[in-house]
Amino acid sequence: MQNIKQFIEGNQQRFLDELFGLIRIPSISSEEKHKPDMQRAAEYWVQLLLKAGADKAELMPTTGNPVVYGEKIINPELPTVLVYGHYDVMPVDPPELWDTPPFEPEIRDGKIFARGADDDKGQCFIHAKAFEYLLQRGTLPCNVKFMIEGEEEIGSAALTVWCAENKDMLKADVILVSDTMMIGQDTPSITCGLRGIAYLEVEVTGPGRDLHSGLFGGAVANPINILAQMIASLHDEKGRITVKGFYDDVRVLSESERAELNQAPFDLERYKKTLGIDWIYGEDGYTTLERTGIRPTLDVCGIWGGYTGEGSKTVLPSKAYAKISMRLVPDQDHETVAQMFTEHFLSIAPDCVKVKVTSLHGGQAYLSPTDSAAYRAAAKALETTFGKRPVPVYSGGSIPIIATFEKVLGIKSILMGFGLDTDATHSPNENFPLKSLFRGIEAVVGFYENFSGGGIRI
Amino acid sequence: MQNIKQFIEGNQQRFLDELFGLIRIPSISSEEKHKPDMQRAAEYWVQLLLKAGADKAELMPTTGNPVVYGEKIINPELPTVLVYGHYDVMPVDPPELWDTPPFEPEIRDGKIFARGADDDKGQCFIHAKAFEYLLQRGTLPCNVKFMIEGEEEIGSAALTVWCAENKDMLKADVILVSDTMMIGQDTPSITCGLRGIAYLEVEVTGPGRDLHSGLFGGAVANPINILAQMIASLHDEKGRITVKGFYDDVRVLSESERAELNQAPFDLERYKKTLGIDWIYGEDGYTTLERTGIRPTLDVCGIWGGYTGEGSKTVLPSKAYAKISMRLVPDQDHETVAQMFTEHFLSIAPDCVKVKVTSLHGGQAYLSPTDSAAYRAAAKALETTFGKRPVPVYSGGSIPIIATFEKVLGIKSILMGFGLDTDATHSPNENFPLKSLFRGIEAVVGFYENFSGGGIRI
Repeated sequence: MQNIKQFIEGNQQRFLDELFGLIRIPSISSEEKHKPDMQRAAEYWVQLLLKAGADKAELMPTTGNPVVYGEKIINPELPTVLVYGHYDVMPVDPPELWDTPPFEPEIRDGKIFARGADDDKGQCFIHAKAFEYLLQRGTLPCNVKFMIEGEEEIGSAALTVWCAENKDMLKADVILVSDTMMIGQDTPSITCGLRGIAYLEVEVTGPGRDLHSGLFGGAVANPINILAQMIASLHDEKGRITVKGFYDDVRVLSESERAELNQAPFDLERYKKTLGIDWIYGEDGYTTLERTGIRPTLDVCGIWGGYTGEGSKTVLPSKAYAKISMRLVPDQDHETVAQMFTEHFLSIAPDCVKVKVTSLHGGQAYLSPTDSAAYRAAAKALETTFGKRPVPVYSGGSIPIIATFEKVLGIKSILMGFGLDTDATHSPNENFPLKSLFRGIEAVVGFYENFSGGGIRI
Repeated sequence: MQNIKQFIEGNQQRFLDELFGLIRIPSISSEEKHKPDMQRAAEYWVQLLLKAGADKAELMPTTGNPVVYGEKIINPELPTVLVYGHYDVMPVDPPELWDTPPFEPEIRDGKIFARGADDDKGQCFIHAKAFEYLLQRGTLPCNVKFMIEGEEEIGSAALTVWCAENKDMLKADVILVSDTMMIGQDTPSITCGLRGIAYLEVEVTGPGRDLHSGLFGGAVANPINILAQMIASLHDEKGRITVKGFYDDVRVLSESERAELNQAPFDLERYKKTLGIDWIYGEDGYTTLERTGIRPTLDVCGIWGGYTGEGSKTVLPSKAYAKISMRLVPDQDHETVAQMFTEHFLSIAPDCVKVKVTSLHGGQAYLSPTDSAAYRAAAKALETTFGKRPVPVYSGGSIPIIATFEKVLGIKSILMGFGLDTDATHSPNENFPLKSLFRGIEAVVGFYENFSGGGIRI
């Protein structure tokens, strides 16, 4: 029987055909019109798992988009790995910045360009193929369960309920997830920290209707000007967030913990070049790795109001809006922070405007230990594939469901991600190198072998 | 022969049919796709003038949309009135706030609801009908010229050039314009002051592409947060504009001039109710009439950046934009102010972003004397029609071309407007009461009779 490298080599075109079929389904969970695509993407996953050799794979209803559940039970006495991923993707705005249509995958320079190529269709597909290989070869050393959801990009609310309802079915020793990044193409890493999130929308209303900015400008509060002032006041001069109580529960790392974290390879010039920036920016007194890894932040993800079309329209608008995302760290609670933000934002609103704050979604931060059997299995697999020991990293991103899994199912996750910071996830021209895809399959196979082959328990 | 009231009474339906035909042409000058509608609206005006009895009426090319020029020369020895108006209209955003389609005029509660019903199709139509009446009756006491342009809402750039090129043809004693408001349905007024305008667009660029707000938030400058800070800094705590040098040329009115200006009827409670606000707002130390009449202001007319769609998308955007309008007063120069703003805005930009400022259009402020023959003729006509002496008012709006007329043609304008502050010009559900339309025709007929009938020269 061929080894994993041969297996990948011999099946490349089929893998790409299968993955491209999945990518072509525009499963944008935040846009209502794509509801039928969510169903199609989920059904596609059922077929992928069945073809790979799952005992069963099915679409399970939730209060939102269905969850794909599949399993292969070798022997109930053996350990069980629960693979988590998601089939939903982010919107494609702004569409005009894509070099090729976002849902027509194309390979250029050895990379697959498409929405979802990395996040998380490409990364999750790795698990289907590693699973298929071990089954074909007859060497799957443990039980495997799959749980692929359709609402990760909008907060996984339905999955939380579904997990609570299916706790027995989901029993496992570890949850294995590929939805994060590595430090570099040749520098493997395992994500041990994830930031939480509190995402809110604010609406500021000035006059009851849009007014002529000439006739009324200067005498009536302009909600855009006011919103700008309110947003500006959310940071102080040191880049700290001014929301009252915001830092109360932030876990403060020791000097030695900070020093260890800063050991991770980081090339500032390369970072700036990749992002197209001349200057980095952020909270005083912290490095870039700390700013994204262990410090909470507040970003306006979207703002709009008044006339935004071509040319000039002289309007004093009635309303202005912003979408505000706060990234949280242990031990901040996202609901507490959302509440604090709401109270603070209402408290800083001047009398001349009306303000509405709506919480859109939230999730807790997560920390994973680096001394578990599963971590060691992942680290060894990555070392074998990449020829280098992986570095534990603290990512700025949020996968709120990871913290929820721990709370609801009582299972820790291993975040063995294969993304790169050049993959442009959530951006136009998202891409995923073929190298990442194929090495990913190899490394996940290695994980199973190390985790169960040696009889190791988490 | 019937008098003006009978003429209006007997021709109401025809007038409305003619006006509605004009309104139905969506002549939005700021949107490229409406180019053919500009031509159609101009041609419609040629027909209106010819049917009313003009000796000639034609479409004259400019560097932009054509100008409609028409005339009736009774006797070169008699004084000449040059009527100015515009056939272009503002965009209709946001379309969902209109109760009926903006270009399908409908009469409800005695008002015509449609884009352009007041500004300026309805108001300008008044002049066509007053002209028609005087010609039908054979009592036109002076020469009349018409100049109806198609770019008022985007700065009248082409008209300025066209005026300079046609100075001889446009010779007149006074320019008569209905494109402003009265204080109330039964409180006539003549606009003696107009604010100037400087309208710019700013673009703030952070990273070279949209980034994941989790992975990069806190470590890379967010252009929306920065733009908000920059906009917030444009006003100080007293509501004064912080652009360096901004107030240098502002004409300071004497205490007695301010006292006279504040004599204009103003009902604060009604004002607040009409605008749907609980609190007024503005520069410390000035009344609402002063804030809109004699003080310059700065308003953000539009802002956009990042994700503005449904639900939540966690993005740290590459760019954020705003459209910023400054209303100017005598003796501020719009080009100087645009330059000052540009320099100031670039100077306050932190290193971590790139800023671009583009001037979109501008116009000078205007002051009209209240002791001219033309002013007296307009005042008398309004007194006869409305039974009340009109009040001279200083409007916050801008009609940049009025100042240009004085500079290029050497002719002062009389701003005899019939709009109301409830007409929602530039807003959804723009409307124009039938009463305003019909009284307008009556008053303009009165203007001609008073201006030339008595042989008075300006």
